[in-house]
Amino acid sequence: MKKYTTVNDIANLTELINDAMALKKNPYAFQNIGKNKTLIMLFFNSSLRTRLSTQKAAQNLGMKVMVMNISKDGWALEFEDGTIMNSTAAEHVKEAAQVISQYGDVLAIRTFAGLTDKNEDYNEKIMSAFVKYATIPVVSLESATEHPLQALTDAITITEHQQKNKPKVVLTWAPHPKALPQAVANSFVKVMQLSNVDLIITHPKGYELDTEITKGATIEYNQEKAFENADFIYAKNWSSFADYGKVLTTDARWMITKKKMQQTHNAKFMHCLPVRRNVVVEDAVLDSENSLVIQQANNRTFAAQVILKKIINNYLSDD
Amino acid sequence: MKKYTTVNDIANLTELINDAMALKKNPYAFQNIGKNKTLIMLFFNSSLRTRLSTQKAAQNLGMKVMVMNISKDGWALEFEDGTIMNSTAAEHVKEAAQVISQYGDVLAIRTFAGLTDKNEDYNEKIMSAFVKYATIPVVSLESATEHPLQALTDAITITEHQQKNKPKVVLTWAPHPKALPQAVANSFVKVMQLSNVDLIITHPKGYELDTEITKGATIEYNQEKAFENADFIYAKNWSSFADYGKVLTTDARWMITKKKMQQTHNAKFMHCLPVRRNVVVEDAVLDSENSLVIQQANNRTFAAQVILKKIINNYLSDD
Amino acid sequence: MKKYTTVNDIANLTELINDAMALKKNPYAFQNIGKNKTLIMLFFNSSLRTRLSTQKAAQNLGMKVMVMNISKDGWALEFEDGTIMNSTAAEHVKEAAQVISQYGDVLAIRTFAGLTDKNEDYNEKIMSAFVKYATIPVVSLESATEHPLQALTDAITITEHQQKNKPKVVLTWAPHPKALPQAVANSFVKVMQLSNVDLIITHPKGYELDTEITKGATIEYNQEKAFENADFIYAKNWSSFADYGKVLTTDARWMITKKKMQQTHNAKFMHCLPVRRNVVVEDAVLDSENSLVIQQANNRTFAAQVILKKIINNYLSDD
Repeated sequence: MKKYTTVNDIANLTELINDAMALKKNPYAFQNIGKNKTLIMLFFNSSLRTRLSTQKAAQNLGMKVMVMNISKDGWALEFEDGTIMNSTAAEHVKEAAQVISQYGDVLAIRTFAGLTDKNEDYNEKIMSAFVKYATIPVVSLESATEHPLQALTDAITITEHQQKNKPKVVLTWAPHPKALPQAVANSFVKVMQLSNVDLIITHPKGYELDTEITKGATIEYNQEKAFENADFIYAKNWSSFADYGKVLTTDARWMITKKKMQQTHNAKFMHCLPVRRNVVVEDAVLDSENSLVIQQANNRTFAAQVILKKIINNYLSDD
Repeated sequence: MKKYTTVNDIANLTELINDAMALKKNPYAFQNIGKNKTLIMLFFNSSLRTRLSTQKAAQNLGMKVMVMNISKDGWALEFEDGTIMNSTAAEHVKEAAQVISQYGDVLAIRTFAGLTDKNEDYNEKIMSAFVKYATIPVVSLESATEHPLQALTDAITITEHQQKNKPKVVLTWAPHPKALPQAVANSFVKVMQLSNVDLIITHPKGYELDTEITKGATIEYNQEKAFENADFIYAKNWSSFADYGKVLTTDARWMITKKKMQQTHNAKFMHCLPVRRNVVVEDAVLDSENSLVIQQANNRTFAAQVILKKIINNYLSDD
Repeated sequence: MKKYTTVNDIANLTELINDAMALKKNPYAFQNIGKNKTLIMLFFNSSLRTRLSTQKAAQNLGMKVMVMNISKDGWALEFEDGTIMNSTAAEHVKEAAQVISQYGDVLAIRTFAGLTDKNEDYNEKIMSAFVKYATIPVVSLESATEHPLQALTDAITITEHQQKNKPKVVLTWAPHPKALPQAVANSFVKVMQLSNVDLIITHPKGYELDTEITKGATIEYNQEKAFENADFIYAKNWSSFADYGKVLTTDARWMITKKKMQQTHNAKFMHCLPVRRNVVVEDAVLDSENSLVIQQANNRTFAAQVILKKIINNYLSDD
């Protein structure tokens, strides 16, 4: 594994999940492989789980970690080629990525979608530039259109909790006051398509995700019908892909409620967090025994750890 | 020791002080006990001494440390139960505290008083919520109404410098241009009440601290009289408790001066820092040999270290 | 070596360069000397290379590192003696520097020139105060008027790439939209004056550097003439020293171009970064094989590492 910036970088999901679950049982088993190796984490945007769990994962492997809020602590970056840089950007990503690569062994980056220019976001302007110019492996801590560490976490969590072969997994849109990226939903759909599950996506009309990503998946506009016999309900808000970045509705009838959960096959509730209580999902669901959100967050550490381990073993190892 | 968020959590002050003084002599004697243990430090507010000394303390014990300015780098938190989270808060402390607890072994938090709502502050809205929902031990790096690591530091420093049994210790209010919390004063009073000292509190009328805390202590409104025969002068500003959060006076006659110090029993001068020179205390006092402020700051490391050691030994140890 | 805040602190440049090049070949050879030693890094200003490379350098030596954005995360500092601190500053540097010194073994500080008060900047108000009051060795991560780690890096890079004895080195001013400090230029001139090179400084009239620093160096106002037979072109913008802090011109004819580079003796191009493309220097130069900017940035690690090693060996060692 030379990079992990999209679910597409996964060669063998089952192997990754098994390795992650082994690391979870014995987190310090490989704490020599990261000796004299440094993870550099760059944050263009807010982070809590990702920031802490990825640091923890690296330290579990014996790596050093350097964390930087690059937009606050560093210099404004230019991403266009050939521009005359006489405005606010003080440094071109070409230099920044090459330079940073010399101070560490793995480069992890978080950057959110701008939600104004679909091409810019779906071309992954920032992440692609770092992948292009960095000379060390790049790991996404969420980018404009994907959140692959979250997706791997979700696949691990479903594997741990599934009680039958080919469980029914429902990805359901839920209301939210602000426009949010499609990144988590995109990566979740991708990872489920690599899994032996029955995936249903439900959302109001107008909230269709990129059909390049959802092709082959079942779209069901009736949330109630989608929930029938579900084993896992994965809730997430996202803004419109077609009417790019827009909030088309905040209809509270799409909120996940205890009553709706009762229509499922005693489904587990999942969400990547942070979650707005009583907007996305009722307290009664989050506080129920069927909620997996805390366990999902815990698995973030082992998803990150297995990816770092793969990168070290396959790419950075001296052997 | 399962948590340390108030001086009330101290079971045996003498033992803590003795252990801290032993650690000061040999800071690296226990650097194996923190192996594979992580301290997570969350800052809602500014910090210099606490931030650096607590990191140092944890590293002295072999712990890893993850530091986060949670209000700047993470998500705005909700603390009320049952609310519909459709405003600015993106995450409920219920999730945040549980999630963070999975990435570390001890959780340390700094959060200041708002000084507008006495109930909110004295109920310790933020710290209490983390204590309630975190699943790992919580340590206060100062909260709305207490600064227990500072208080332990102060008790250590007085023990090191006292030249007689039952020294006279004076806590004196001093002027300040801004409204400050009562936290340091509250915790100092509490820790002195656990100590074998003669405690006098002096301040202008209207600056009485919470009587629940000061009961049993002597209040003397005449600063000059309070200073007579004092062995330690502990200066600190705080805003009014009765007229909550208000600055009632900035009367410069309450400033600690060389002249006032000469009325004491060659008293040592103490302050938790940061201190405003020539407002709270004259240069001549701070720069005198009787000032202990730098030595107090040094003891912050060993106060934090003894608390972390206690928590690891009594609560996190595998034995 | 007891501090490194100016190029003047270098006793033997050749030895430092040789040691740095040895560290570059074997970065982990001395990773026991930093055991139980802590580097504290304080940032008053933005940093990317310095922030990451100095952390990496310290970790290569086995040191712990504590990084703090002191102006954002700490308290506003007072630098004047004898003032009545009733305004914004909450803490005097006298306390801050002494206190911080107790939590670490080496103190590294970045602080930029204000560019409004020449005396304040050239007296190094902030750096001098920390040097005065700190009780541990101080290392500059760039100050108002010097950037000595960059200068050492530059000397290492020139040594690595020079193809003849006494190469011709040209420091050339280049245009920039904002007023920048003279720090990098000052330190580069100083370090070149310790080196066996032929140093030419070229800039528009009015951009003369402090003559205390440049005395003995050749000033050539004709950039084209200066470039003739040059082996190294070191580009940098700075604001006026005489008309202090002012941008006198942004004349694009001073930009470093491919065409100008062709007038040299196949010169290597150097810049400390960040660099504004097509303002300071053309893409064609930066992207050419003759550009050393990435290799310069890499050498930042070993410049910092050799300085920290010197400080530990000569000053902090128990032997």
